[in-house]
Amino acid sequence: MEHFEAWAETNFEENLAVLIDYLRVPTLAGQGVGVPEGAEATAALLAAAGVEPRLIDVPGAPPVVYGEIGEGPRTLMVYDHYDVQPAEPLDLWTSAPYEPTIRDGRLYARGAADNRGELAARVRALAGYRATMGEPPLKIKFVFEGEEEIGSPHLGEFVAANRDMLEADGCLWEGGGWDDDGNPEMTLGLKGIAYFDLRVRSADADLHSSLAAIVPDAAWRLVWALASLKDADERITIEGFMARVVEPGPEDLALLERLPLNEAKIRETTGIARFVNGLTGLALKRKLYFEPTCTICGLTSGYGGPGAKTVLPAEASAKVDFRLVPDLDPPTVERLLRDHLDRHGFADIETRLISGVAPARSPVNADIVRAAIATARAIWGMEPAVSPNSPG
Amino acid sequence: MEHFEAWAETNFEENLAVLIDYLRVPTLAGQGVGVPEGAEATAALLAAAGVEPRLIDVPGAPPVVYGEIGEGPRTLMVYDHYDVQPAEPLDLWTSAPYEPTIRDGRLYARGAADNRGELAARVRALAGYRATMGEPPLKIKFVFEGEEEIGSPHLGEFVAANRDMLEADGCLWEGGGWDDDGNPEMTLGLKGIAYFDLRVRSADADLHSSLAAIVPDAAWRLVWALASLKDADERITIEGFMARVVEPGPEDLALLERLPLNEAKIRETTGIARFVNGLTGLALKRKLYFEPTCTICGLTSGYGGPGAKTVLPAEASAKVDFRLVPDLDPPTVERLLRDHLDRHGFADIETRLISGVAPARSPVNADIVRAAIATARAIWGMEPAVSPNSPG
Repeated sequence: MEHFEAWAETNFEENLAVLIDYLRVPTLAGQGVGVPEGAEATAALLAAAGVEPRLIDVPGAPPVVYGEIGEGPRTLMVYDHYDVQPAEPLDLWTSAPYEPTIRDGRLYARGAADNRGELAARVRALAGYRATMGEPPLKIKFVFEGEEEIGSPHLGEFVAANRDMLEADGCLWEGGGWDDDGNPEMTLGLKGIAYFDLRVRSADADLHSSLAAIVPDAAWRLVWALASLKDADERITIEGFMARVVEPGPEDLALLERLPLNEAKIRETTGIARFVNGLTGLALKRKLYFEPTCTICGLTSGYGGPGAKTVLPAEASAKVDFRLVPDLDPPTVERLLRDHLDRHGFADIETRLISGVAPARSPVNADIVRAAIATARAIWGMEPAVSPNSPG
Repeated sequence: MEHFEAWAETNFEENLAVLIDYLRVPTLAGQGVGVPEGAEATAALLAAAGVEPRLIDVPGAPPVVYGEIGEGPRTLMVYDHYDVQPAEPLDLWTSAPYEPTIRDGRLYARGAADNRGELAARVRALAGYRATMGEPPLKIKFVFEGEEEIGSPHLGEFVAANRDMLEADGCLWEGGGWDDDGNPEMTLGLKGIAYFDLRVRSADADLHSSLAAIVPDAAWRLVWALASLKDADERITIEGFMARVVEPGPEDLALLERLPLNEAKIRETTGIARFVNGLTGLALKRKLYFEPTCTICGLTSGYGGPGAKTVLPAEASAKVDFRLVPDLDPPTVERLLRDHLDRHGFADIETRLISGVAPARSPVNADIVRAAIATARAIWGMEPAVSPNSPG
């Protein structure tokens, strides 16, 4: 390690220059800006570290930049993305977003964080490892995509088409942050999502509400259907849904105990008097990190303006967002939701899955987690704040 | 009666000319058009029939035109209004709305029906009665308001301030129509209304839905509160609400049996497959005419556009319209609703009564109802279609 640290010291300016060059040409997937340039620059980074890069075409999407190096009994995947968010509004930037500038010991540019900075640091670290310690004693697979900032719409297809190539014992995601106390954060998973449009039509057109005694009301149909999904005690009541939730184990709960959650600060910034069900402490953290959600993100029906309009709405719709934990995934939730509505007399409620991502979570005692924690301790000389999951 | 009929025959052209003149100058309360002119013309009609008219000032509203005539043990009130709806869209008129025109034996002008035609016919009928049979053997009180078409916002105040003057044994409302079979319709009551805005705020601002595991969701709060008001079998579950509903008596049910309701036509025009709870026949009519409603006229919360937005809404609102039957009135409903929400853990749901009108219904066997039915039989030579209530 001393050799590596000496290398990092000696090559600091050069590594910084590589990063600064890399940040000058942005890739904006949504705008179709700088896609080949970003892919080429990313491939060049890999090549400079001794990894033979491949640009893998993904129909309708920026290419995935892929490379492998090393041999050993285990395989580590490193995932990052080379696209960035648009820099607007430009007048809030102190220095131009694509002219990387150092102020007070910090580098400012679009993508310096999230995610070109992390991507380049990881590749340059490999270069340093190879220069001082030789080939890595495990296989490393770099997977760099170019449309993460628009929701990775083609990544699922890419993974499905390249399962063998992407097989690995563990994966490092984009990067991490620092908590309020200055400890490095480490997150072992992400909740998934299944986002639905629920819609019901009860008549050909809106009617006068005097007919409401005998003509069905779309808004009522929707309200009753929704109320059957989750009760006022925040229990999701879709048959078979909660039964699939993997309960946290003793190690998870031990982690949660240590994980800080500034309740007062959240209450203050959101303006809420209390958390759901009056929860606090470990029970609150457990709900936040280990339980799925069923959120109404929107309700639309009939008249919403000032005063009164005596309308009997013909249509009503809701946006419903489920955050998923293992073993729930979008197709399962779609099927459970449909079955539940049909069984409870709500066959008239249409359900449409708008977007879905499966959850992912590593066990606390997985080898890769233990290795990452040990590495963080060794490098930073302090205990990382390990979160068993991300709430989002 | 022969004398009266001869008078009507002889004076047909003159009475028609009076009506045509009356229809030329409209009163539009919402636009403040023709208010003094309409009140004066209405007063002149009364005066020409031998009734001394009074223009009673109502602060902020067109004057009420009032007149009394006759003496006897009973008092009949005659209610009509001298304002009309705006005539727009003008290009749908075959002849100009304020140039009364006769085509195919019918008189076309704004207000020829609803309600200057009926008003003038009643006053001219009194003139004929007096000319042929002398003073009426009962007291008749004419009450003609000038802002019915904008919802009579000041009539309640006017009635409250003039209770003694307005006391009566019965009241004839604006007028009636003809059913599909050509029988004269008679309606013995109107449902009332209590229209509420329900609103809840759960946080200072919309949040990201990843916090939904622990931060309350305004849309859910609203859905649960609404679902507590009426169940999926269309039963209103507000404590004390249904207990106040006066059940129809045997005479009411006998009337309902005879009253036609073209179910197929309603299903076809509304596009519904079935009525609520699959009702049909007498049970359907009973629900339509004798039961109160609780209708969601609108739902508004969070995101309602295309696709997904992962928002946790801070605010949600609903418009809720109750149609009332005796003995429910708006203040009672407001109190029952508030108590119900508070008792069921929904103190956070604000309730605001936007508009309210009490229901009114005459018993089928009331003297005035029997007299009206007998009169209709005598005049038209056929059985009137008597509806015990209006659904609206």
